[in-house]
Formats: sequence, structure tokens, C-alpha cells
Amino acid sequence: MGDIMRIVIVGLGVIGGSYAMALKEAGYNEVYGIDKNIDTLNKAKALGIIKEGYEDGKEIVSEADLIVLAVYPDLVKSFISNNKENFKDNAIITDVTGIKQLFINEVLDILPDNIDFVFAHPMAGREKKGIDYATNTVFKDANFLITVTDKNKIESLELIEELAYKMGFKHVKRICPKYHDEMIAFTSQLPHALAVALINSDIEGRNTGEFIGDSYRDLTRIANINETLWSQLFLGNKENLLQAIYNFEEELDKIKSCLENEDKEALRELFIKSSVRREKL
Amino acid sequence: MGDIMRIVIVGLGVIGGSYAMALKEAGYNEVYGIDKNIDTLNKAKALGIIKEGYEDGKEIVSEADLIVLAVYPDLVKSFISNNKENFKDNAIITDVTGIKQLFINEVLDILPDNIDFVFAHPMAGREKKGIDYATNTVFKDANFLITVTDKNKIESLELIEELAYKMGFKHVKRICPKYHDEMIAFTSQLPHALAVALINSDIEGRNTGEFIGDSYRDLTRIANINETLWSQLFLGNKENLLQAIYNFEEELDKIKSCLENEDKEALRELFIKSSVRREKL
Repeated sequence: MGDIMRIVIVGLGVIGGSYAMALKEAGYNEVYGIDKNIDTLNKAKALGIIKEGYEDGKEIVSEADLIVLAVYPDLVKSFISNNKENFKDNAIITDVTGIKQLFINEVLDILPDNIDFVFAHPMAGREKKGIDYATNTVFKDANFLITVTDKNKIESLELIEELAYKMGFKHVKRICPKYHDEMIAFTSQLPHALAVALINSDIEGRNTGEFIGDSYRDLTRIANINETLWSQLFLGNKENLLQAIYNFEEELDKIKSCLENEDKEALRELFIKSSVRREKL
Repeated sequence: MGDIMRIVIVGLGVIGGSYAMALKEAGYNEVYGIDKNIDTLNKAKALGIIKEGYEDGKEIVSEADLIVLAVYPDLVKSFISNNKENFKDNAIITDVTGIKQLFINEVLDILPDNIDFVFAHPMAGREKKGIDYATNTVFKDANFLITVTDKNKIESLELIEELAYKMGFKHVKRICPKYHDEMIAFTSQLPHALAVALINSDIEGRNTGEFIGDSYRDLTRIANINETLWSQLFLGNKENLLQAIYNFEEELDKIKSCLENEDKEALRELFIKSSVRREKL
């Protein structure tokens, strides 16, 4: 593909904007942006992280060697169906979506044979949305997951892997979509569910802020959440997330039993188990 | 009491050691330490944060103007009963315990009339225990709670408040023990219960570390927990913590219902509520 790879990022929100920054820092100069918000495009251009921005992407899409879809989960498939006549021959497409099984098969069903879609999940983000919160520092030392399909070419996988490392990610891992969604339900969606339930369970009108330490701050940080994105992620991975919640509830029940039975020794055992697991992390 | 106030810290663990550091930085030079671990005393002396250390504190306790009890909750009362004939006239005692109702009345019952106990809770700490993890930076901008009793003298309360500000705490608040324990069950103990249950609910043998981002890291940090301290804190505030868990479970049930019923709009509302609350914090 060579050095003059032309990259088009679709959606210059917090993740798409962060990709643009990381790509710039990695030395990629042929990076273009598509966004429906003209202010976002102007900001990205002023930051020097895209060469040009487009509200209507038809033309630049047709010239793209690599397309990064940094859009909400429900827009991935529609982007492919809207542009399937329009892609450059042998173009590679990748995404940033936190769940995979929801749309992978549907996308593969309509994807032209000459296009390779490398489904990816950069495990980094911020609570806030929009280009103003974009920063490539969140990628440093983060995990990057690629959910491989039967149709992926080795060269495409290697290209995205190389790109991830150049953008600052520390670990890149290839896995199957099913395992990805199971693990992500536990490591990402469950923590968000707990943070939301925790802060929502506060009794209205209390001066809680005067009674908090770092633990409450840490555990509620992600309760500040993009409701459009996360409602799609939760419902798009419903079965796995429910199972993760049930598993969590079993462990919380153990703590409750220890309290109800005043079983200090059993409680200490739970704490020792959690400490060992956290140390290993 | 004047400038030559002699302060004795009982227990130079992570919190007692951090007090010693903060007091040194605030300009207090007459600070002594009591600890049953001779290595700890030697380290504290080598760090220059205590003037002298004692394994048996009888003598130095009798010369102390201010005693800071930085010990496990179950040792607060026994320290008072063991030393009640031994305190200097008009000495002030304070503690650092995260729960209060467990022992306040019992302590007041045996406390000599000429001694004032200002029950305090510095809302800062670290997952690790021991003087090696002591640092006064955790107090910077943190909350400091004083649970006032009928017996406290105004001057004693003011002295501890002034000390807290000098050690770097940002907010000092006086409250009643009952409200303290209710609030702390929610803001401190519940987050610890959730973190422990979260990491313990992982399925054994998975390579979870390759699938985590900041959210899982943040939500499990406090799952690395001092089992002796926290089993005492949990059981010593059992009713309040159970109530906080029940309230949390109600909110988690709401999320489960949204998933089970695929109710995106209700899920968005829960996320909007949590985001507004977190922004306000």
C-alpha cells in the first residue's frame, strides 16, 4: 500500500479526533475527516490533524485506502450499505466499536468482495464526547482488540496492528467476536452499569460531596456517560451483560451473607481473594 | 496549649505515618510514635517524621498533649481502658477511624473527665498498608470529618480542625456520628463492596488483563484491600452498609429491566441521571 496511504476518518468525535491526533503524531499526513458538524471539521483542520474535512464524504470515500469508522454502533452497517458502490478497489475499513456480534455478520453480508473490514476495538476513551475532548494520550499503553473474521486478509490485519502500535497502543490482540463480546461485557459494560447504579442509588438531597474520598470518585467517574453510545452498547450486548450482572450479584450476595451472619472470617477471605486478583492485574 | 504541643501518634501504619509526615511538613517538631513493630519505628525516625519511637508507650503517653490513635477500630476502646490512669491532665485524643457509632459511646463511658476525645475521620487513604506507603499527599484537598459528641469542648474541636487544615485537608466538617456512619456506608464502604464483588465475579482462568481499559482498572483499584481493617469497618457498620447495598440493588435492577425489556429510552434516562449527578460532584 506504500507510504501515501490515504486515510479517511468518519466521525471526528472524541475517538475519531483522538485517532486523527495519534495518526498525525505517528507521521501520517494524508488524513481526511468526514463529519456532519462543520464546526468539528473546522476545529480538526485548525488543529492540523486532518488535511481536509467533508460534510458529504462521497468523493473522499472513493479515494480512501483506509477508512476508520468512528461512529455510533448503529451507523456502521448503514455506512457500508450507503457507500458499497463507492469504495476504492482493495480499500480497508476498520471501526472502533465496543461490541462486535451485533453487526459483524450483517456487515459482511453486504460488504463488496474487494473490500476488507478489520473490526477493531481500541480500549480507551473518555467520559466526555466531541472533538474538544480528543487526545491521543489515552491510547498510550492501552489495549487494542481485533475481532478477526474468515474474510480478513493477513495483510489487512497486519496493517491495522501496525497502525495501532504506531498510535501508541501497547497490546494488540486478535480474538473471535464471540469471546470479545463476552469479555467486554465483564470488563467494560459491567463497570459502567455499576458506576451508574452506584451514583443513582444516592438518596436525593444529601450533601454527598462532603463525605467522599477517592474511592467514590474513582467508582463514579464513568457514571458520566454518553447515553446514546452506551444505551446502544448495552442493548447490543444484552445477553452477555445480563450474565455478567448475574455473576456480579452472586458475589455481592456473598458479601451480604457475611454481613447478615456477622461472619468476619468469610469476609476476610473475600477480601483476600479480591486483593490477590487485583495485585495480579 | 501553645507552640510546644507534644503529639503522640499511636500506630505508624499507612495513615499514622502519613499523619507524621503531614505534621512535620506543617512545622510540628514534637511528634512521637508508638508502634509494636520496631522496624516501623526505625523507619519513621530515619525519615525524620518522629522525634522518638516507643514500643511500650506508657511513659510518652503520660506526657502527650495530643494523642492520635491511628489503629484498627477494635483497638480504640482498649487503648483508652489500658491508659485511662495514664493520660496527662487535659490531654486531647483523636482518632482516624472510618466508622464511629461502633465505639463512641463505649469510649465516652470510660474516658476520664479531664480528657477530651475528638472523634475524626480523615477521608483519605491508600490500598496498601504499612509505613512504606505513607504519604501526606493523599490529604491534599481531601475531606476531613469530625463526629461531635456532647462532651467535646469547643477549643478541642477547633484545635483538631486547625490541625486538619494545616495537614492539607480542604474541607473540615462537623457532623453527628449517626449521619456520619450512614453517609460513609454509601460513599466508602459500598464502593469497596462493589469493587470486591466485581473482581471476584470474574470467571477463573480468563486472560482478563488483555481486555481491560481504564474503567475496569478504576473500579477495581480498591479491591486490593486490607482485610483486617475492612472486615472490621464493614461489620462495625453492618446495618447502614446493608441498607446502602439494598438501595444499590434497586438501581441495578432498573438497569437489568431495561436490558430485559430492551427499553432504550429508560436506559438513556438512567444514564442522563447518573451523568448529571456525576457532573455536580
